[in-house]
Amino acid sequence: MRTIDWDGGAVRIIDQTRLPEEMVVLEVREVDELVAHIRSLAVRGAPALGVAGALGMALAACRSAEQGGELDADLAVAAGKLSGARPTAVNLSWGVEQLRAARAAGAGPDELVAAALAIRDADISANRALSERGAQLLAGARRVLTHCNAGGLACVEVGTALGVIERLHEAQPLEMVYVCETRPLLQGSRLTAWELGRRGIPHRVIVDSAAAGLVLGGQVEAVVVGADRIAANGDVANKVGTVAHAVAANYAGIPFVVAAPESTIDPATETGAAISIELRDDTEVLALAGRRVAAPGSTGLNPAFDVTPAALVTAIVTERRTISGRAAGTGPGRAPGMAAAEEAGLNALD
Amino acid sequence: MRTIDWDGGAVRIIDQTRLPEEMVVLEVREVDELVAHIRSLAVRGAPALGVAGALGMALAACRSAEQGGELDADLAVAAGKLSGARPTAVNLSWGVEQLRAARAAGAGPDELVAAALAIRDADISANRALSERGAQLLAGARRVLTHCNAGGLACVEVGTALGVIERLHEAQPLEMVYVCETRPLLQGSRLTAWELGRRGIPHRVIVDSAAAGLVLGGQVEAVVVGADRIAANGDVANKVGTVAHAVAANYAGIPFVVAAPESTIDPATETGAAISIELRDDTEVLALAGRRVAAPGSTGLNPAFDVTPAALVTAIVTERRTISGRAAGTGPGRAPGMAAAEEAGLNALD
Repeated sequence: MRTIDWDGGAVRIIDQTRLPEEMVVLEVREVDELVAHIRSLAVRGAPALGVAGALGMALAACRSAEQGGELDADLAVAAGKLSGARPTAVNLSWGVEQLRAARAAGAGPDELVAAALAIRDADISANRALSERGAQLLAGARRVLTHCNAGGLACVEVGTALGVIERLHEAQPLEMVYVCETRPLLQGSRLTAWELGRRGIPHRVIVDSAAAGLVLGGQVEAVVVGADRIAANGDVANKVGTVAHAVAANYAGIPFVVAAPESTIDPATETGAAISIELRDDTEVLALAGRRVAAPGSTGLNPAFDVTPAALVTAIVTERRTISGRAAGTGPGRAPGMAAAEEAGLNALD
Repeated sequence: MRTIDWDGGAVRIIDQTRLPEEMVVLEVREVDELVAHIRSLAVRGAPALGVAGALGMALAACRSAEQGGELDADLAVAAGKLSGARPTAVNLSWGVEQLRAARAAGAGPDELVAAALAIRDADISANRALSERGAQLLAGARRVLTHCNAGGLACVEVGTALGVIERLHEAQPLEMVYVCETRPLLQGSRLTAWELGRRGIPHRVIVDSAAAGLVLGGQVEAVVVGADRIAANGDVANKVGTVAHAVAANYAGIPFVVAAPESTIDPATETGAAISIELRDDTEVLALAGRRVAAPGSTGLNPAFDVTPAALVTAIVTERRTISGRAAGTGPGRAPGMAAAEEAGLNALD
């Protein structure tokens, strides 16, 4: 089952607000409905939102044609609603704009649907390619650690970091995937653990701060994460906590690999210093399950992302290339658990 | 108000199961009551439990005298109950044994109370001395980070890591203390934030995994933590997550200081590798506030502690000395924010 798909003139999405308790598939036939589901985070993750934007425009074109509406006017209204559903999600408006461009080039409803499906398919094939590339790079690693959810649930079908892990497991069964719970919103324990469980991949959920002890203790052979944005110099912005794992992996001398499509690399951002870190509401830190746990009167600081310096990244794998960073296995913490990454040509930019 | 104290023939303890919502002081006149409070974690923290064991024996001696009981028999019963309240808490039985030794040397009820009060006072003066020493070492640091609760609530009155932070603040007001929430049991957001709030020290609660981003981003000038056990080679066992902060501090080139009484140093433990890490029930990771959040069927791994290699420790401060480790400011991550630690003679074992 795909996270987001198109079937018989409708958009189908897995309702991620119901996971991991139950798997509910929503069939969405109206743009307003899709906008509501985007707002409620029923569908989330940058790549999935790009596809949602495109499929939303396809939906608008189909409804307009069925109802004999004025296509350009109907698409303009839909574009405004979709892009406004989560204004800071650049992929969402990117998907919308792709379809507007197709319409400007003369596409009718059927061609618009085809254009949206091409975007869907491109996500799947890009993530499949980068997963394969990452798995080759890490061939031999049997115990890996990941953070947050960079899985199929954030994309269409194949994840990025989790795509790499699944390919590794297909090539040779993994012994263990350590899943960081990912405070404050717990995407690791809720979503990544659910995805791994469905695929029968052995995993254990850990508190985020337990990762360093496992890494330094030799229980982890590689760290694999996704990315929200990659600067031109290779600095990587990703979910808060990522850089802690990068520093530990560097010290322990194990590979720290970032798996992300080329579209994540932003040449206009020179370094990570130029990436502004979203500060979210501190109640996410101070309360659990709606009940305040922190001392009364205390306040929190809740950065949603952090920046991992390029110097701590062993490699970035995309659908097109492997961008090499620090050599794996150079940290002072312990002898490297594996040399496979370097053998696989890690330091050759291809 | 002291965490645990003696007043008019009774033990008085702050009920930590009610914090941070409300501050309730329990007056305990019977050993059985005290045992129940130790079991429920109303009193916790290694130093505080040592004092609880001693004061519990004093309580038994007083009740025995009032009721005309047989002192040695009554003390033997009390010793068994107290030491058995939390069998793995070595400080608890250490406190009990101190009083048994005093009785063996001929002490009567009054002398036993005096012996227990001496243990109480020794905790206060040791922590005051090490706090002063740590604050001198870090003089000039205005933005510090701590983990878990190494505060007065874990001791009698003055904390260890939090004692250092309070002394720093007295010498010159701190700009900010970053308090790691300390998953899974949240001693940071519940207890440390409460202690800092009561003293009017500016602080923000963060998720544990946000620490590395702040440290590498230059927002933290020093990390100060307590210790559960220190091996002969300087390896430090402390609450899970500690080593993540140590690796980040090392990379960023800021001091990572461990504040602990001499009694924490275990010469019989050669290195951290000899310290077995307690694995606690994984429901602490998989559920929040009693409600499961992790994917159904997924399991967790829940180490309670981790080991920070001596090579990552800038200094250990005790009531008697400063044990120097790595030089502060040598990390590749950024220029050191402060040289005060080295100026203060960090590398001189005194």
